[in-house]
Amino acid sequence: MLPLPVLEQAAAEMTNYRGTGMSVMEMSHRGKAYVAIFDETKADLKRIMNVPDTHDILFMQGGATLQFSAVPMNLIGKTGKADYAVTGNFSNAAMKEAKKYGEINVACTSEDKNHTYIPAQKDIKASGEASYFHYCANNTVYGTEWKYIPDAGDVPLVCDMSSNILSGPVDVSKYGIIYAGVQKNMAPAGVAVVIINKELAGNEHPLTPKLMNYQVMIDSNSMHNTPACYTIYVLGLVLKWLEKQGGLEAMVKNKVERAGYLYDLLDESKMFIGCAEKDARSYMNVTFRTASEELDAQFIKEAKAAGFDTLKGHRAVGGMRASIYNAMPIEATQKLAAFMREFETKNS
Amino acid sequence: MLPLPVLEQAAAEMTNYRGTGMSVMEMSHRGKAYVAIFDETKADLKRIMNVPDTHDILFMQGGATLQFSAVPMNLIGKTGKADYAVTGNFSNAAMKEAKKYGEINVACTSEDKNHTYIPAQKDIKASGEASYFHYCANNTVYGTEWKYIPDAGDVPLVCDMSSNILSGPVDVSKYGIIYAGVQKNMAPAGVAVVIINKELAGNEHPLTPKLMNYQVMIDSNSMHNTPACYTIYVLGLVLKWLEKQGGLEAMVKNKVERAGYLYDLLDESKMFIGCAEKDARSYMNVTFRTASEELDAQFIKEAKAAGFDTLKGHRAVGGMRASIYNAMPIEATQKLAAFMREFETKNS
Repeated sequence: MLPLPVLEQAAAEMTNYRGTGMSVMEMSHRGKAYVAIFDETKADLKRIMNVPDTHDILFMQGGATLQFSAVPMNLIGKTGKADYAVTGNFSNAAMKEAKKYGEINVACTSEDKNHTYIPAQKDIKASGEASYFHYCANNTVYGTEWKYIPDAGDVPLVCDMSSNILSGPVDVSKYGIIYAGVQKNMAPAGVAVVIINKELAGNEHPLTPKLMNYQVMIDSNSMHNTPACYTIYVLGLVLKWLEKQGGLEAMVKNKVERAGYLYDLLDESKMFIGCAEKDARSYMNVTFRTASEELDAQFIKEAKAAGFDTLKGHRAVGGMRASIYNAMPIEATQKLAAFMREFETKNS
Repeated sequence: MLPLPVLEQAAAEMTNYRGTGMSVMEMSHRGKAYVAIFDETKADLKRIMNVPDTHDILFMQGGATLQFSAVPMNLIGKTGKADYAVTGNFSNAAMKEAKKYGEINVACTSEDKNHTYIPAQKDIKASGEASYFHYCANNTVYGTEWKYIPDAGDVPLVCDMSSNILSGPVDVSKYGIIYAGVQKNMAPAGVAVVIINKELAGNEHPLTPKLMNYQVMIDSNSMHNTPACYTIYVLGLVLKWLEKQGGLEAMVKNKVERAGYLYDLLDESKMFIGCAEKDARSYMNVTFRTASEELDAQFIKEAKAAGFDTLKGHRAVGGMRASIYNAMPIEATQKLAAFMREFETKNS
């Protein structure tokens, strides 16, 4: 979901961007007009996320999935080993991909309880020899979210924030790399934002494709080839919208209220059961179910008819999932909670 | 450049795609509405380019540059060797990148005459042991274009058609792989179209990133991760526009006429000199210069003031370059040719 004002502005500027006579889709990535858009987007993101000068912001192609490969190809050479926390689908996929490039230690996993919780710091078993520690901050399929930054000592932290980036302030200085596919909270699919401590670049495996080489991307300011210009432009519009809403502090306030309607209902309901443990509940993805698959199916069907369109849970877990990213209006969850109450009353 | 009707339609459908109440930017790539767009775009491209059933069409991220790595990572393992034709900037970059992954034989190069020509078939020195033969069909920087399909015998042909794809019919069955960054003739930057003989997939180097693995992309119908959905949608609009113009036959007629105005002028002019040898002239990029750099600079300046905006040649060669892709109206080159005549008269 993208904010409606962003879509309206993109539509209005489509054939003629601010008097240039060109669409952003047609601009040369080296031309003045586009470079201004690119520079402003990067500067806005740096300011909003308070990115320190030790770090650079890269706009890469291939989404988070290509970063699953890029991270080990660029970083694992230091010791040949890395630590991974496995708390859901994407962190598991990242871990498996990394195994191609080095020795992987699963430092913690929530698999024993079907990823319904986030392991505590005391349960993280670091290898002591890792080139980096990787985790995924929010697990879309299971509806869990890390509420603390894991302490990996001197080992650089690498975090996939695809599904909760820009939902609140983050201390970027604590991370070696933050990366995020943009399609949840930032822009249409096709770009991964990579925020990297520049010290970590330059030690890539010799077979690393040039376009996945962090040092090449830093040196070329993400313009080693033509970047996904239009997607970056839309990201720029989203960042302007976000600042207008009040920045990351407003996003926190919104997400707490937005998710609150659903979690309050789950706490009260005798029919609907939250899937995630309370202290691991995600602000971005609320997962729940009833006591029976039949009732789940009936709920999904009736909800769809009432206009709540994509509530079916991921096939790996079943049940229901409400994905409520930054652009989701608070009223939407208020209405969904009311609908759920009504459904419960009717079917109890 | 993109056709104006395409941009207008994209703008009109931005906030509400054909009654779905959603922007294409917001659609799930697994949802019905988007899958219909994706399938239709793929089917349209298959029909327009007459892609045989032996081949699949992939929509990958990272542009042509990531294919510079993907091609050797997927294919070179067969013999450990590959043949490359070097006729310009991009073919040279592709060749250099491939050297990471195997032994490269430069089968021919036009470097001796600063890439102003295309080598003849008889001058191609195949290694006899190549896993594939790679060339770039059109050289944007130098304004040259292959007018024949090189004969590599049993060795699969791999061709970078980024800058002339969809400018005319191609016998796809003769190619192992055709790939193209979409940003010249197809769509905004962010996608590479890869047309691959399915037999060639499945032999990738073990370190190949999963998202660059052709077999994975074939098996997942380009949806191993979220593809660049919006870019593919715009490509779909461009394909509809192209068919409405009369398909590839019309594109041929247009390009011959469009480039003709400029090449006729270069043949007549006593001031402007075409950079490419006549039988290698590109229909997509017309490169020319005068006898002096000062006059070149004066021409570029005056042309810019007259509304011809991006005529400066690539920094590697200097002079001038008119890039005249499919979406460029024929009148534009007619006007440019008239402006050049006038400039010559005034300054002779």
